[in-house]
Amino acid sequence: MSLTTVICVLWAVSVGQTAGSQHGTNIIIMLMDDMGWGDLGVFGEPSKETPNLDLMAAQGMLFPNFYTANPLCSPSRAALLTGRLPVRNGFYTTNAHARNAYTPQEIVGGISPDEILLPELLKKKDYVSKIIGKWHLGHRTQYLPLKHGFDEWFGSPNCHFGPYNNSVCPNIPVYNNSEMKGRYYEEFEINVKTGESNLTQIYLKEGLDFISQQAVAQRPFFLYWAPDATHAPVYASKRFLGKSQRGRYGDAMMELDDSIGQILAHLVSLGIHNKTLVFFTSDNGAAVMSGPLQSGSNGPFLCGKETTFEGGMREPAIAWWPGRIPAGTVSYQLGSVMDLFTTSLSVAGVLPPDDRVIDGLDLSPVLFNNSLLDRPIFYYRGNQLMAVRIGQYKAHYWTWSNSWEEFNKGINFCPGQEVPGVTTHTQEEHTMQPLIFHLGQDPGERYPISVESKEYRDVLRRVTAVVEQHQKDLIPGMPQLNMCDLAVMEPRMRCVS
Amino acid sequence: MSLTTVICVLWAVSVGQTAGSQHGTNIIIMLMDDMGWGDLGVFGEPSKETPNLDLMAAQGMLFPNFYTANPLCSPSRAALLTGRLPVRNGFYTTNAHARNAYTPQEIVGGISPDEILLPELLKKKDYVSKIIGKWHLGHRTQYLPLKHGFDEWFGSPNCHFGPYNNSVCPNIPVYNNSEMKGRYYEEFEINVKTGESNLTQIYLKEGLDFISQQAVAQRPFFLYWAPDATHAPVYASKRFLGKSQRGRYGDAMMELDDSIGQILAHLVSLGIHNKTLVFFTSDNGAAVMSGPLQSGSNGPFLCGKETTFEGGMREPAIAWWPGRIPAGTVSYQLGSVMDLFTTSLSVAGVLPPDDRVIDGLDLSPVLFNNSLLDRPIFYYRGNQLMAVRIGQYKAHYWTWSNSWEEFNKGINFCPGQEVPGVTTHTQEEHTMQPLIFHLGQDPGERYPISVESKEYRDVLRRVTAVVEQHQKDLIPGMPQLNMCDLAVMEPRMRCVS
Repeated sequence: MSLTTVICVLWAVSVGQTAGSQHGTNIIIMLMDDMGWGDLGVFGEPSKETPNLDLMAAQGMLFPNFYTANPLCSPSRAALLTGRLPVRNGFYTTNAHARNAYTPQEIVGGISPDEILLPELLKKKDYVSKIIGKWHLGHRTQYLPLKHGFDEWFGSPNCHFGPYNNSVCPNIPVYNNSEMKGRYYEEFEINVKTGESNLTQIYLKEGLDFISQQAVAQRPFFLYWAPDATHAPVYASKRFLGKSQRGRYGDAMMELDDSIGQILAHLVSLGIHNKTLVFFTSDNGAAVMSGPLQSGSNGPFLCGKETTFEGGMREPAIAWWPGRIPAGTVSYQLGSVMDLFTTSLSVAGVLPPDDRVIDGLDLSPVLFNNSLLDRPIFYYRGNQLMAVRIGQYKAHYWTWSNSWEEFNKGINFCPGQEVPGVTTHTQEEHTMQPLIFHLGQDPGERYPISVESKEYRDVLRRVTAVVEQHQKDLIPGMPQLNMCDLAVMEPRMRCVS
Repeated sequence: MSLTTVICVLWAVSVGQTAGSQHGTNIIIMLMDDMGWGDLGVFGEPSKETPNLDLMAAQGMLFPNFYTANPLCSPSRAALLTGRLPVRNGFYTTNAHARNAYTPQEIVGGISPDEILLPELLKKKDYVSKIIGKWHLGHRTQYLPLKHGFDEWFGSPNCHFGPYNNSVCPNIPVYNNSEMKGRYYEEFEINVKTGESNLTQIYLKEGLDFISQQAVAQRPFFLYWAPDATHAPVYASKRFLGKSQRGRYGDAMMELDDSIGQILAHLVSLGIHNKTLVFFTSDNGAAVMSGPLQSGSNGPFLCGKETTFEGGMREPAIAWWPGRIPAGTVSYQLGSVMDLFTTSLSVAGVLPPDDRVIDGLDLSPVLFNNSLLDRPIFYYRGNQLMAVRIGQYKAHYWTWSNSWEEFNKGINFCPGQEVPGVTTHTQEEHTMQPLIFHLGQDPGERYPISVESKEYRDVLRRVTAVVEQHQKDLIPGMPQLNMCDLAVMEPRMRCVS
């Protein structure tokens, strides 16, 4: 595969045109499901099977230090769309300590009506908004996307777990706007044995059609493209099955990569690439507990999904806007999925709400001038602040992988990895003396800095001030994801086939 | 940093010219010291601080599946220059089982006079050959580079360990051809406290000058550029110290990356880039036992230097020859440092010796046509065949990280990693039932394939045939690195400061 020619052609196209007006800019957020930092060729996946994403990075800005707001799907997605930490927007549980919660089909909760979502705000500038794929902010009627600012929806409220026994537990529905079009494993087939499903092709076509329609109508649009092929059970369509060197997960990756290439090419062919900001990222780290066939890679990072180690929360991220974002740049900005809320508003010319705390930053100075904004990253598990990153330093106030009980059943959140005193199977509090790592020197969180060192004392003083300020100002939202039955707060389902 | 413009300019230059005659092609082999697969931005180092190597890959061919012939410096280098496995060329010891040996200053052995080295063969086509940096094939007079085909040498026979107490153990000498110019820590300063040394700058200047001289003389040349700044104690010159996000190791990386950029730019400025094959790689995996400040990264791979897990033997590798090697390509070829011997001969138009087994392949079809050649990779520790890779499968016949005795002293060959039954601290034989991994699906060697599966039986049958053939044909060379004192066979030195 040769990147050079394509880069040159696009470069020639984009320099010949001035960037469009910032306002009215189209916004596409591509949010992957359980895809890990290390799954992209440009981030060192050894099979190097993501030529389109690698090209997107070569044409745009790559973020090696980009984070989710929670290492689980629902709270991550709620944070992205509200610009607020889950502890503020209510996407957490108080059922248990440091327990991430999400919205399986048994849960009654969902996104609070008090929260204002990105597409609601974009209406002020006449944006048309569509979500394609996974919603995960609640499946009861009042929580669905069309009630929260989206004009269109094709996808599902929940994960595509299953198949379920319909008599006790129905399969998950798939909607076209407010109409249920069928269910996974029924009208929308997923063959868990072979891994075949054409869902990504459906989501791709929905995306391309929506873009075409808005281009014709000349209306600014927001497309939230959230396919879930890389969430277990992973799937790919026939054309991609068996094609990857990585097995079934790699097949799903290749199909997503191909689809992303098609979407970007579509923008170019419609001539709207220079007035469209595209941002690619993932909702949480790779689900390494599902490995190897159903899991992605977190590259050199520790552990994965569910944890607040780097493998759980550092995400692949690429921004692309030919003519506006300089090609082939790397930004060392500490970024967050919550920044996509604020940055999208900025690009659209809409002010963020002023009646609440917004955690997302406007990354415009980063995207357009490669500036660096000083900001901490907060790592939460449920409503427990587990760790904080400032600059290159990360301080762990609590460590936990998963319980001995789970671990002894063979569920491993950190397969092949073990850092004594760090990847603990009991919840360990370090509040009085946090474990501090230098992530530049030690991205794998293997070597805590000596508490005897001046470096430790200096960092501790700085990070303590940040944490104290954060906690002083914090007013937790009402928890929306509490349940009486603790078992369903686990990532595994009560409804099993 | 913007790659796009530079790529376009170079592309425009190279397509406007026809490739030079293959014979007479200059050859530059850049061999790094203890640099890991994961140390390059293009292979996912999160700080992304190697813009020149990443650009070299964008302009050339990247090899994610390239291997050394032994996870330790001396045998790796002997294999590269002879095209033969250390078990054939004698760069091993029989002092202990599965023990890698090298050439510390106490050893009396070195490269056998019966071995024929690459520069000796290149003389047939009037090549001028120079080695810059670390030799490591023996320090006694008869073993030095000028006795084995090199016309010029600037560098040292040994590692830059030290400083030593001169009265008992002298510092390592630095040579200019056959003249000793001084010693490390004396005339050639390395400040182990600050990490400052200008040695890489000296090696860079030596390289640029040599290239200039041969360009003027219009003689084909072979430059073996082997700097050692990334071997502990790692060092960088003042301009680079403190510049990396990764600490001192990263400073050394940045200086090497910058130097490589300068060498490639020099070839372009002299107009000889289209008749020069440049190959970049490393001698073994990152020395993770020295981490974090003195160690590189093996990315997602298991363990590092000294071991036959992927972290010990998979190397970063890039081939660059504008106009001949297609830009921006990825080759999935299983490659070896020994192939550099055979490929260099092929490019120079010299036949390899026909009186001995040569393990290296001619990669010309890979470089020029992106062909894939079927071949196994043999993983040796000393003269013990530990593992074999065929296609995506790797079978371990022996597993070992390091001894409990060493491990209990705090020497860890796999920090933060532990795969039960795989990263064993006792030498475990699996000859009757090898552990088999699928490296595409499981690059971290965490999930052995079930011995009950058809896949296992199929792979075992194929790999058994390969191993039986290999062992049937194998005539081990005389071991050159035996010593009476086993202690000096360890990677740590008896001569300590």
